[in-house]
Amino acid sequence: MEFSSKIIEQAVDAFSKLPGVGKKTALRFVLHVIKQDKTEADKLSALISRLKTDLKFCESCFNISESSICEICANPVRDSALICVVQDYRDILAIEKTGLYKGHYHVLGGLISPLEGIGPSNLTIEPLVEKLKSGSISEVILALNATMEGETTSFFIFKKIAPYNVKLSAIARGIAVGDELEYADEVTLGRSITNRIPFDSLLKK
Amino acid sequence: MEFSSKIIEQAVDAFSKLPGVGKKTALRFVLHVIKQDKTEADKLSALISRLKTDLKFCESCFNISESSICEICANPVRDSALICVVQDYRDILAIEKTGLYKGHYHVLGGLISPLEGIGPSNLTIEPLVEKLKSGSISEVILALNATMEGETTSFFIFKKIAPYNVKLSAIARGIAVGDELEYADEVTLGRSITNRIPFDSLLKK
Repeated sequence: MEFSSKIIEQAVDAFSKLPGVGKKTALRFVLHVIKQDKTEADKLSALISRLKTDLKFCESCFNISESSICEICANPVRDSALICVVQDYRDILAIEKTGLYKGHYHVLGGLISPLEGIGPSNLTIEPLVEKLKSGSISEVILALNATMEGETTSFFIFKKIAPYNVKLSAIARGIAVGDELEYADEVTLGRSITNRIPFDSLLKK
Repeated sequence: MEFSSKIIEQAVDAFSKLPGVGKKTALRFVLHVIKQDKTEADKLSALISRLKTDLKFCESCFNISESSICEICANPVRDSALICVVQDYRDILAIEKTGLYKGHYHVLGGLISPLEGIGPSNLTIEPLVEKLKSGSISEVILALNATMEGETTSFFIFKKIAPYNVKLSAIARGIAVGDELEYADEVTLGRSITNRIPFDSLLKK
Protein backbone atom coordinates (compact mmCIF):
# COMPACT_ATOMS: atom_id res chain seq x y z
CA MET A 1 0.00 0.00 0.00
CA GLU A 2 1.14 3.54 -0.72
CA PHE A 3 0.28 6.19 1.82
CA SER A 4 0.27 9.94 1.43
CA SER A 5 2.22 10.37 4.66
CA LYS A 6 5.42 8.84 6.01
CA ILE A 7 4.00 8.82 9.56
CA ILE A 8 0.95 6.83 8.48
CA GLU A 9 3.22 4.36 6.70
CA GLN A 10 5.45 3.90 9.77
CA ALA A 11 2.47 3.62 12.12
CA VAL A 12 0.84 1.00 9.87
CA ASP A 13 4.14 -0.94 9.87
CA ALA A 14 4.37 -0.75 13.66
CA PHE A 15 0.74 -1.80 14.25
CA SER A 16 1.00 -4.66 11.74
CA LYS A 17 3.71 -6.26 13.91
CA LEU A 18 1.01 -7.06 16.48
CA PRO A 19 -0.13 -10.70 16.26
CA GLY A 20 -2.89 -11.33 13.70
CA VAL A 21 -2.82 -7.76 12.40
CA GLY A 22 -2.30 -7.22 8.66
CA LYS A 23 -1.75 -3.94 6.80
CA LYS A 24 -5.47 -3.30 6.28
CA THR A 25 -6.34 -3.78 9.94
CA ALA A 26 -3.30 -1.70 10.92
CA LEU A 27 -4.58 1.13 8.73
CA ARG A 28 -7.99 0.90 10.44
CA PHE A 29 -6.20 1.25 13.80
CA VAL A 30 -4.21 4.24 12.53
CA LEU A 31 -7.34 6.02 11.22
CA HIS A 32 -9.08 5.30 14.52
CA VAL A 33 -6.19 6.86 16.48
CA ILE A 34 -6.20 9.93 14.21
CA LYS A 35 -9.94 10.38 14.75
CA GLN A 36 -10.05 9.80 18.51
CA ASP A 37 -9.31 12.38 21.21
CA LYS A 38 -5.69 13.26 21.85
CA THR A 39 -6.01 12.14 25.48
CA GLU A 40 -7.10 8.65 24.39
CA ALA A 41 -4.16 8.34 21.98
CA ASP A 42 -1.73 9.61 24.62
CA LYS A 43 -3.10 7.08 27.10
CA LEU A 44 -2.56 4.18 24.71
CA SER A 45 0.91 5.49 23.83
CA ALA A 46 1.91 5.88 27.50
CA LEU A 47 0.55 2.46 28.49
CA ILE A 48 2.54 0.73 25.73
CA SER A 49 5.72 2.33 27.11
CA ARG A 50 4.78 1.43 30.68
CA LEU A 51 4.21 -2.23 29.71
CA LYS A 52 7.93 -2.43 29.01
CA THR A 53 9.20 -0.23 31.85
CA ASP A 54 6.92 -1.24 34.73
CA LEU A 55 6.48 -4.95 34.08
CA LYS A 56 9.06 -7.70 34.33
CA PHE A 57 9.12 -11.47 34.46
CA CYS A 58 9.02 -13.06 37.92
CA GLU A 59 12.54 -14.32 38.73
CA SER A 60 11.15 -17.53 40.13
CA CYS A 61 8.28 -18.59 37.83
CA PHE A 62 8.55 -16.21 34.81
CA ASN A 63 5.01 -14.95 35.34
CA ILE A 64 4.47 -11.31 34.33
CA SER A 65 4.85 -9.19 37.43
CA GLU A 66 5.25 -5.63 38.67
CA SER A 67 7.95 -6.72 41.13
CA SER A 68 10.89 -9.12 40.80
CA ILE A 69 8.87 -11.88 42.52
CA CYS A 70 5.24 -12.20 41.41
CA GLU A 71 2.24 -12.07 43.76
CA ILE A 72 1.62 -15.80 43.48
CA CYS A 73 5.20 -16.78 44.34
CA ALA A 74 5.28 -14.21 47.15
CA ASN A 75 2.03 -15.45 48.70
CA PRO A 76 2.95 -17.47 51.83
CA VAL A 77 -0.44 -19.25 51.85
CA ARG A 78 0.24 -20.97 48.52
CA ASP A 79 1.95 -24.36 48.38
CA SER A 80 5.47 -23.83 47.03
CA ALA A 81 6.11 -27.60 46.78
CA LEU A 82 3.56 -27.85 43.96
CA ILE A 83 4.45 -26.46 40.51
CA CYS A 84 2.02 -26.19 37.62
CA VAL A 85 3.83 -25.84 34.30
CA VAL A 86 1.96 -23.63 31.77
CA GLN A 87 2.67 -22.13 28.37
CA ASP A 88 2.01 -18.48 29.14
CA TYR A 89 0.39 -15.84 31.33
CA ARG A 90 -3.08 -16.44 29.87
CA ASP A 91 -3.07 -20.01 31.14
CA ILE A 92 -2.37 -18.76 34.67
CA LEU A 93 -5.38 -16.41 34.36
CA ALA A 94 -7.53 -19.35 33.21
CA ILE A 95 -6.42 -21.69 36.01
CA GLU A 96 -6.64 -18.97 38.69
CA LYS A 97 -10.23 -18.34 37.57
CA THR A 98 -11.18 -21.91 38.55
CA GLY A 99 -10.14 -21.10 42.12
CA LEU A 100 -9.12 -24.76 42.56
CA TYR A 101 -5.32 -24.49 42.42
CA LYS A 102 -3.28 -23.23 45.34
CA GLY A 103 0.28 -24.09 44.27
CA HIS A 104 2.92 -22.19 42.33
CA TYR A 105 3.35 -21.91 38.56
CA HIS A 106 6.19 -22.14 36.07
CA VAL A 107 5.71 -20.26 32.78
CA LEU A 108 7.52 -21.86 29.83
CA GLY A 109 7.05 -18.88 27.50
CA GLY A 110 5.95 -21.10 24.60
CA LEU A 111 5.87 -24.67 23.38
CA ILE A 112 8.46 -26.68 21.45
CA SER A 113 7.63 -26.12 17.78
CA PRO A 114 10.27 -26.94 15.16
CA LEU A 115 8.03 -25.34 12.50
CA GLU A 116 8.15 -21.99 14.30
CA GLY A 117 11.82 -22.47 15.19
CA ILE A 118 11.11 -22.79 18.93
CA GLY A 119 13.38 -25.34 20.62
CA PRO A 120 13.75 -26.34 24.30
CA SER A 121 16.49 -23.73 24.75
CA ASN A 122 14.00 -20.94 23.92
CA LEU A 123 11.82 -22.02 26.83
CA THR A 124 12.40 -21.85 30.58
CA ILE A 125 12.90 -25.61 30.97
CA GLU A 126 16.42 -25.34 32.46
CA PRO A 127 15.31 -23.08 35.35
CA LEU A 128 12.51 -25.59 36.04
CA VAL A 129 15.05 -28.41 36.33
CA GLU A 130 17.19 -26.19 38.59
CA LYS A 131 14.21 -25.74 40.93
CA LEU A 132 13.83 -29.53 41.23
CA LYS A 133 17.49 -29.91 42.22
CA SER A 134 16.76 -28.12 45.49
CA GLY A 135 14.62 -31.10 46.54
CA SER A 136 11.84 -28.90 47.92
CA ILE A 137 9.39 -29.68 45.11
CA SER A 138 7.02 -32.61 45.66
CA GLU A 139 4.90 -32.54 42.47
CA VAL A 140 5.02 -31.04 38.98
CA ILE A 141 1.71 -30.76 37.10
CA LEU A 142 1.95 -30.35 33.32
CA ALA A 143 -0.93 -28.12 32.14
CA LEU A 144 -0.06 -27.67 28.46
CA ASN A 145 -2.31 -27.56 25.39
CA ALA A 146 -3.55 -30.94 24.15
CA THR A 147 -1.91 -30.22 20.78
CA MET A 148 1.08 -31.78 19.05
CA GLU A 149 3.34 -28.98 20.35
CA GLY A 150 1.92 -29.31 23.87
CA GLU A 151 2.39 -33.10 23.97
CA THR A 152 5.93 -32.84 22.55
CA THR A 153 6.84 -30.29 25.20
CA SER A 154 5.26 -32.39 27.96
CA PHE A 155 7.25 -35.43 26.84
CA PHE A 156 10.49 -33.42 26.71
CA ILE A 157 9.92 -32.14 30.26
CA PHE A 158 9.01 -35.65 31.42
CA LYS A 159 12.41 -36.91 30.21
CA LYS A 160 14.27 -33.99 31.78
CA ILE A 161 12.52 -34.43 35.11
CA ALA A 162 12.74 -38.24 35.28
CA PRO A 163 16.12 -38.34 37.13
CA TYR A 164 14.69 -36.35 40.05
CA ASN A 165 12.49 -37.86 42.68
CA VAL A 166 9.42 -35.76 41.88
CA LYS A 167 5.85 -36.83 41.20
CA LEU A 168 4.87 -35.80 37.67
CA SER A 169 1.23 -35.47 36.64
CA ALA A 170 -0.71 -33.97 33.76
CA ILE A 171 -4.12 -32.32 33.74
CA ALA A 172 -6.87 -34.80 32.80
CA ARG A 173 -7.88 -35.16 29.16
CA GLY A 174 -11.46 -36.20 28.57
CA ILE A 175 -14.97 -35.20 27.69
CA ALA A 176 -15.56 -31.53 28.45
CA VAL A 177 -18.33 -30.80 30.93
CA GLY A 178 -21.50 -30.25 28.88
CA ASP A 179 -20.25 -32.22 25.85
CA GLU A 180 -22.16 -35.07 24.21
CA LEU A 181 -20.29 -38.37 23.68
CA GLU A 182 -21.64 -38.66 20.14
CA TYR A 183 -19.65 -35.61 19.03
CA ALA A 184 -16.43 -36.31 20.94
CA ASP A 185 -13.44 -37.32 18.81
CA GLU A 186 -12.18 -40.92 19.06
CA VAL A 187 -8.84 -40.11 20.69
CA THR A 188 -10.43 -38.05 23.46
CA LEU A 189 -13.16 -40.63 24.06
CA GLY A 190 -10.61 -43.47 24.01
CA ARG A 191 -8.42 -41.71 26.56
CA SER A 192 -11.37 -40.89 28.78
CA ILE A 193 -12.16 -44.63 28.97
CA THR A 194 -8.56 -45.73 29.57
CA ASN A 195 -8.08 -43.06 32.24
CA ARG A 196 -11.46 -43.56 33.88
CA ILE A 197 -11.85 -42.20 37.40
CA PRO A 198 -13.66 -43.37 40.54
CA PHE A 199 -17.24 -42.14 40.23
CA ASP A 200 -17.30 -40.51 43.66
CA SER A 201 -14.55 -38.08 42.56
CA LEU A 202 -17.16 -36.48 40.27
CA LEU A 203 -19.34 -35.77 43.26
CA LYS A 204 -16.77 -33.46 44.88
CA LYS A 205 -16.10 -30.12 43.36
CA MET B 1 -11.29 -10.79 32.96
CA GLU B 2 -9.20 -10.33 36.07
CA PHE B 3 -5.55 -9.51 35.63
CA SER B 4 -2.76 -9.75 38.14
CA SER B 5 -1.57 -6.25 37.27
CA LYS B 6 -3.29 -2.86 37.02
CA ILE B 7 -1.08 -1.88 34.06
CA ILE B 8 -2.08 -4.96 32.08
CA GLU B 9 -5.72 -4.21 32.83
CA GLN B 10 -5.42 -0.59 31.67
CA ALA B 11 -3.46 -1.57 28.56
CA VAL B 12 -6.03 -4.22 27.66
CA ASP B 13 -8.76 -1.58 28.06
CA ALA B 14 -6.88 0.88 25.86
CA PHE B 15 -6.13 -1.66 23.12
CA SER B 16 -9.71 -2.95 23.12
CA LYS B 17 -10.92 0.52 22.08
CA LEU B 18 -9.34 -0.10 18.66
CA PRO B 19 -11.95 -1.13 16.07
CA GLY B 20 -12.67 -4.87 15.98
CA VAL B 21 -10.48 -5.61 19.01
CA GLY B 22 -12.04 -7.44 21.96
CA LYS B 23 -10.54 -8.12 25.38
CA LYS B 24 -8.92 -11.41 24.32
CA THR B 25 -7.22 -9.90 21.27
CA ALA B 26 -6.19 -6.88 23.35
CA LEU B 27 -4.52 -9.23 25.85
CA ARG B 28 -2.64 -10.93 22.99
CA PHE B 29 -1.40 -7.48 21.91
CA VAL B 30 -0.35 -6.65 25.47
CA LEU B 31 1.58 -9.93 25.87
CA HIS B 32 3.22 -9.33 22.50
CA VAL B 33 4.36 -5.85 23.57
CA ILE B 34 5.73 -7.21 26.87
CA LYS B 35 7.69 -9.89 25.00
CA GLN B 36 9.09 -7.73 22.20
CA ASP B 37 12.19 -5.50 22.37
CA LYS B 38 11.88 -2.23 24.23
CA THR B 39 12.85 -0.29 21.09
CA GLU B 40 9.92 -1.82 19.17
CA ALA B 41 7.47 -0.94 21.93
CA ASP B 42 8.87 2.59 22.18
CA LYS B 43 8.52 2.99 18.41
CA LEU B 44 4.86 2.00 18.46
CA SER B 45 4.24 4.24 21.47
CA ALA B 46 5.96 7.24 19.84
CA LEU B 47 4.18 6.76 16.51
CA ILE B 48 0.77 6.68 18.19
CA SER B 49 1.56 10.05 19.80
CA ARG B 50 2.88 11.46 16.51
CA LEU B 51 -0.29 10.43 14.67
CA LYS B 52 -2.14 12.98 16.78
CA THR B 53 0.52 15.71 16.91
CA ASP B 54 1.92 15.62 13.35
CA LEU B 55 -1.19 14.88 11.33
CA LYS B 56 -4.20 17.09 10.75
CA PHE B 57 -7.18 17.22 8.44
CA CYS B 58 -6.76 19.22 5.22
CA GLU B 59 -8.66 22.52 5.64
CA SER B 60 -10.06 22.23 2.15
CA CYS B 61 -10.96 18.56 1.61
CA PHE B 62 -10.59 16.97 5.10
CA ASN B 63 -8.06 14.44 3.82
CA ILE B 64 -5.42 13.41 6.39
CA SER B 65 -2.39 15.60 5.86
CA GLU B 66 0.91 16.68 7.40
CA SER B 67 0.24 20.30 6.44
CA SER B 68 -2.89 22.44 6.63
CA ILE B 69 -3.57 21.86 2.91
CA CYS B 70 -3.05 18.27 1.68
CA GLU B 71 -0.73 17.29 -1.18
CA ILE B 72 -3.64 16.62 -3.53
CA CYS B 73 -5.31 20.01 -2.95
CA ALA B 74 -1.92 21.76 -3.17
CA ASN B 75 -1.00 20.08 -6.48
CA PRO B 76 -1.48 22.70 -9.25
CA VAL B 77 -1.65 19.99 -11.95
CA ARG B 78 -4.88 18.55 -10.54
CA ASP B 79 -8.28 19.82 -11.65
CA SER B 80 -9.76 21.82 -8.78
CA ALA B 81 -13.13 22.16 -10.56
CA LEU B 82 -13.75 18.41 -10.12
CA ILE B 83 -14.61 17.08 -6.65
CA CYS B 84 -14.88 13.39 -5.81
CA VAL B 85 -16.84 12.83 -2.57
CA VAL B 86 -15.59 9.84 -0.55
CA GLN B 87 -16.29 8.36 2.88
CA ASP B 88 -12.75 8.31 4.24
CA TYR B 89 -9.00 8.34 3.64
CA ARG B 90 -8.91 4.68 2.55
CA ASP B 91 -11.18 5.46 -0.40
CA ILE B 92 -8.74 8.14 -1.57
CA LEU B 93 -5.93 5.55 -1.41
CA ALA B 94 -8.04 3.12 -3.47
CA ILE B 95 -8.99 5.69 -6.14
CA GLU B 96 -5.46 7.13 -6.33
CA LYS B 97 -4.18 3.59 -6.96
CA THR B 98 -6.23 3.40 -10.18
CA GLY B 99 -4.26 6.40 -11.49
CA LEU B 100 -7.37 7.45 -13.46
CA TYR B 101 -8.57 10.40 -11.39
CA LYS B 102 -6.92 13.81 -11.51
CA GLY B 103 -9.39 16.01 -9.66
CA HIS B 104 -9.75 16.96 -5.99
CA TYR B 105 -11.49 15.04 -3.21
CA HIS B 106 -13.89 15.80 -0.38
CA VAL B 107 -13.78 13.45 2.62
CA LEU B 108 -17.11 13.11 4.45
CA GLY B 109 -15.66 11.34 7.48
CA GLY B 110 -18.42 8.72 7.49
CA LEU B 111 -21.84 7.91 6.10
CA ILE B 112 -25.29 8.80 7.38
CA SER B 113 -26.31 5.94 9.67
CA PRO B 114 -29.16 6.44 12.15
CA LEU B 115 -28.32 3.06 13.72
CA GLU B 116 -24.83 4.26 14.63
CA GLY B 117 -26.10 7.71 15.52
CA ILE B 118 -24.34 9.42 12.59
CA GLY B 119 -26.39 12.21 11.07
CA PRO B 120 -25.60 14.73 8.31
CA SER B 121 -24.27 17.21 10.87
CA ASN B 122 -21.55 14.74 11.89
CA LEU B 123 -20.22 14.74 8.32
CA THR B 124 -18.52 17.47 6.30
CA ILE B 125 -21.52 18.08 4.04
CA GLU B 126 -21.88 21.79 4.92
CA PRO B 127 -18.29 22.64 3.89
CA LEU B 128 -18.95 20.80 0.60
CA VAL B 129 -22.00 23.00 -0.05
CA GLU B 130 -19.92 26.07 0.86
CA LYS B 131 -17.38 25.10 -1.82
CA LEU B 132 -20.13 24.95 -4.43
CA LYS B 133 -21.29 28.48 -3.54
CA SER B 134 -18.02 29.87 -4.91
CA GLY B 135 -19.14 28.79 -8.41
CA SER B 136 -15.71 27.40 -9.31
CA ILE B 137 -16.80 23.75 -9.15
CA SER B 138 -18.03 22.17 -12.39
CA GLU B 139 -18.71 18.56 -11.34
CA VAL B 140 -19.20 16.57 -8.14
CA ILE B 141 -18.67 12.80 -8.34
CA LEU B 142 -20.22 10.72 -5.56
CA ALA B 143 -17.99 7.73 -4.85
CA LEU B 144 -19.67 6.20 -1.80
CA ASN B 145 -20.24 2.58 -0.86
CA ALA B 146 -23.08 0.80 -2.66
CA THR B 147 -24.71 0.08 0.70
CA MET B 148 -27.86 1.41 2.33
CA GLU B 149 -25.81 4.03 4.23
CA GLY B 150 -23.90 5.01 1.10
CA GLU B 151 -27.05 5.42 -0.99
CA THR B 152 -28.80 7.40 1.78
CA THR B 153 -25.82 9.74 2.04
CA SER B 154 -25.63 10.12 -1.75
CA PHE B 155 -29.32 11.03 -1.90
CA PHE B 156 -28.94 13.55 0.94
CA ILE B 157 -26.02 15.24 -0.85
CA PHE B 158 -27.97 15.18 -4.13
CA LYS B 159 -30.78 17.15 -2.46
CA LYS B 160 -28.35 19.61 -0.82
CA ILE B 161 -26.47 20.20 -4.08
CA ALA B 162 -29.54 20.44 -6.37
CA PRO B 163 -29.97 24.26 -5.99
CA TYR B 164 -26.47 24.89 -7.35
CA ASN B 165 -25.64 24.71 -11.03
CA VAL B 166 -23.22 21.79 -10.70
CA LYS B 167 -23.09 18.53 -12.64
CA LEU B 168 -23.58 15.63 -10.21
CA SER B 169 -22.51 12.11 -11.10
CA ALA B 170 -21.96 8.84 -9.28
CA ILE B 171 -19.41 6.11 -9.92
CA ALA B 172 -20.83 3.33 -12.11
CA ARG B 173 -22.49 0.32 -10.49
CA GLY B 174 -22.29 -2.88 -12.46
CA ILE B 175 -20.64 -6.23 -12.98
CA ALA B 176 -17.10 -6.20 -11.55
CA VAL B 177 -14.32 -6.91 -14.02
CA GLY B 178 -13.69 -10.67 -13.89
CA ASP B 179 -17.16 -11.52 -12.55
CA GLU B 180 -19.55 -14.06 -14.10
CA LEU B 181 -23.11 -12.92 -14.84
CA GLU B 182 -24.53 -16.11 -13.39
CA TYR B 183 -23.35 -15.17 -9.90
CA ALA B 184 -24.19 -11.45 -10.02
CA ASP B 185 -27.12 -10.37 -7.83
CA GLU B 186 -30.32 -9.23 -9.53
CA VAL B 187 -30.14 -5.59 -8.50
CA THR B 188 -26.59 -5.16 -9.81
CA LEU B 189 -27.36 -7.00 -13.04
CA GLY B 190 -30.59 -5.02 -13.52
CA ARG B 191 -28.77 -1.71 -13.01
CA SER B 192 -25.98 -2.73 -15.34
CA ILE B 193 -28.56 -3.29 -18.11
CA THR B 194 -30.47 -0.05 -17.42
CA ASN B 195 -27.26 1.96 -17.31
CA ARG B 196 -25.63 0.24 -20.26
CA ILE B 197 -22.75 2.09 -21.88
CA PRO B 198 -21.50 2.52 -25.47
CA PHE B 199 -19.37 -0.52 -26.25
CA ASP B 200 -16.40 1.51 -27.46
CA SER B 201 -15.99 3.05 -23.99
CA LEU B 202 -14.87 -0.43 -22.82
CA LEU B 203 -12.05 -0.34 -25.36
CA LYS B 204 -10.36 2.68 -23.77
CA LYS B 205 -8.66 2.29 -20.46
